[in-house]
Amino acid sequence: MAENTVDPAAKTPVTLLGLGAMGAALARAWLAAGHPLTVWNRTPARAEPLAALGATVAATAAEAIAAGRLVVVCLLDDDSVAEALDGVDLAGRDVVNLVTSTPSQARARAAWVRGRGARYLDGGIMAVPPMIGVPVAGPYVFYSGSPGLFAEHRDTLAVPAGTTWVGEDPGFAALYDVALLSAMYGMFAGVAHAFALIGEEEVAPTELAPLLSSWLTAMAGSVAKTAERLESGDYTGGVVSALAMQVAGTPTFLRTAEEQGVSAELLEPYFRLMRRRLAEGGGEEDLVGVVDLLRR
Amino acid sequence: MAENTVDPAAKTPVTLLGLGAMGAALARAWLAAGHPLTVWNRTPARAEPLAALGATVAATAAEAIAAGRLVVVCLLDDDSVAEALDGVDLAGRDVVNLVTSTPSQARARAAWVRGRGARYLDGGIMAVPPMIGVPVAGPYVFYSGSPGLFAEHRDTLAVPAGTTWVGEDPGFAALYDVALLSAMYGMFAGVAHAFALIGEEEVAPTELAPLLSSWLTAMAGSVAKTAERLESGDYTGGVVSALAMQVAGTPTFLRTAEEQGVSAELLEPYFRLMRRRLAEGGGEEDLVGVVDLLRR
Ligand SMILES: NC(=O)c1ccc[n+]([C@@H]2O[C@H](COP(=O)([O-])OP(=O)(O)OC[C@H]3O[C@@H](n4cnc5c(N)ncnc54)[C@H](OP(=O)(O)O)[C@@H]3O)[C@@H](O)[C@H]2O)c1
Ligand SMILES: NC(=O)c1ccc[n+]([C@@H]2O[C@H](COP(=O)([O-])OP(=O)(O)OC[C@H]3O[C@@H](n4cnc5c(N)ncnc54)[C@H](OP(=O)(O)O)[C@@H]3O)[C@@H](O)[C@H]2O)c1
Repeated sequence: MAENTVDPAAKTPVTLLGLGAMGAALARAWLAAGHPLTVWNRTPARAEPLAALGATVAATAAEAIAAGRLVVVCLLDDDSVAEALDGVDLAGRDVVNLVTSTPSQARARAAWVRGRGARYLDGGIMAVPPMIGVPVAGPYVFYSGSPGLFAEHRDTLAVPAGTTWVGEDPGFAALYDVALLSAMYGMFAGVAHAFALIGEEEVAPTELAPLLSSWLTAMAGSVAKTAERLESGDYTGGVVSALAMQVAGTPTFLRTAEEQGVSAELLEPYFRLMRRRLAEGGGEEDLVGVVDLLRR
Repeated sequence: MAENTVDPAAKTPVTLLGLGAMGAALARAWLAAGHPLTVWNRTPARAEPLAALGATVAATAAEAIAAGRLVVVCLLDDDSVAEALDGVDLAGRDVVNLVTSTPSQARARAAWVRGRGARYLDGGIMAVPPMIGVPVAGPYVFYSGSPGLFAEHRDTLAVPAGTTWVGEDPGFAALYDVALLSAMYGMFAGVAHAFALIGEEEVAPTELAPLLSSWLTAMAGSVAKTAERLESGDYTGGVVSALAMQVAGTPTFLRTAEEQGVSAELLEPYFRLMRRRLAEGGGEEDLVGVVDLLRR
């Protein structure tokens, strides 16, 4: 094939910086799908197993970046990105930054990358390494930033995990990522409390588990209604369990914790906000008013 | 039909004490299913709409209880049960107490009822009134206490909502009920934090909602693994996201909250316990060690 003609079956070359747990999983997925892959890792030994699978190993980040247009970054954190890309020529590159960061960090990194003549896409990975490259629905990456970059490389980016586009603001991928993970930690806190409660009893955790997970799944459905209320500002229409009634029920939860010898430290902050909203006159509302209390 | 023969098609008569939001919903379900129903409510006016639907209205709790063997109690709280049943003859009755209580309250109430010559079943209602009597899978009541009473009246009890038997200990229905609702409040706390985070941004709550609820649903699946670890005591085998790595990620969550002007009060207690477990040497573990910290 002559130079400068494009083989439509050829897979887009990928440069990948960072071969930690996540980077290595991404690398294997692209190699398995037949993408030419150039890798760089600060500690060279981590590149060896990937070289054996067909990856080209670059000696420096600059060399890896020079190898192709699409540059995926999967280092530890934003500081390590600054350090690894310091002084490297990014002109004409498409930088996809999968490093977990805050929305502000992502925006600042976008400006910094664009200032060096490159396009920028930020990503928030909603998966753990064992899920990467596995052909199941579920794991995905939030993307935000340059829409052109995303449209062009979408198929390549979809190889390791599904893609979910959330907007041009490069901070949005991080914002969605942190929002979902924060909610997850809240749920985990509730789950920890539930298991602690049954602990001294004759209830086996595996007996509670299926009931607990299907209950949480059912209750996760209420998120849609919460969103509607926040958007409409109508916190009282069609309320089934009014805040006043729910606050009246909280002593039973706290007393049960005490009876079972369990610290209520994971429940108390939410109950405190419920009481505060009630005191402010929100008794007829749904629980949604708590969101506003967090934002003052 | 001669007296003392049983018509197999006849529906079991039910006596119901309490016609608040939940009691009235239960009453309508039994009436709709053709069960003879005797009701009593402290404030008589609340019985009128049910009389119009065919319920027999008793003037006192004692009169209602005298009307039939199966007595369902749906008053406000344990104190109101003590007050309403004070001095009433319960001999030979089957008392099903659906009042929300703590496990200890339920056990004490069981002993009190049994001491008066009645059988006792405790119930924890995992539903709101609009779900009662609606033929959909989902809403149910946890039952614990007398297995004989449950076996005999299971079909009647299943009319307003599904039944889930959780053991002979009369405190277990309350324990399961409180465990599931506590976990739910944890999840709601996480959801409130997530919506607060996106609030000042250009992200519409209804855009986040479907992503958030499917993420929580996926993560609710991890409850089974948590239960297995608690039961086996193996907190480290096959761990994908080690506690140390997760603790290392927490500053991003806290910094994002700060950037977005959101109080982290709903996240901090769980992060604090994660850090404490890490400090105690649990860095290689899953998050499950937090459960043990709550129980000291
Ligand atoms: N693992 C997960 O479950 C998961 C899930 C979602 C998102 N993420 C995100 O994915 C990114 C990578 O995570 P990971 O699990 O692969 O982390 P990891 O296993 O700890 O690997 C960290 C990587 O960053 C490199 N690195 C650290 N500091 C550096 C520096 N100053 N200069 C150059 N390279 C540096 C390390 O190189 P050395 O080999 O030389 O140390 C290594 O390649 C993180 O932002 C993480 O938050 C991970
Ligand atoms: N509603 C729900 O979403 C829901 C969900 C699950 C479980 N539950 C539980 O179901 C039970 C009833 O709830 P609900 O929603 O029906 O409550 P509710 O609407 O507030 O009604 C309370 C009922 O208790 C009666 N009552 C209160 N104090 C009394 C006393 N000292 N003596 C006699 N009767 C007294 C009231 O009689 P008056 O009419 O005379 O005031 C009324 O019938 C509670 O234990 C609740 O926790 C409710």
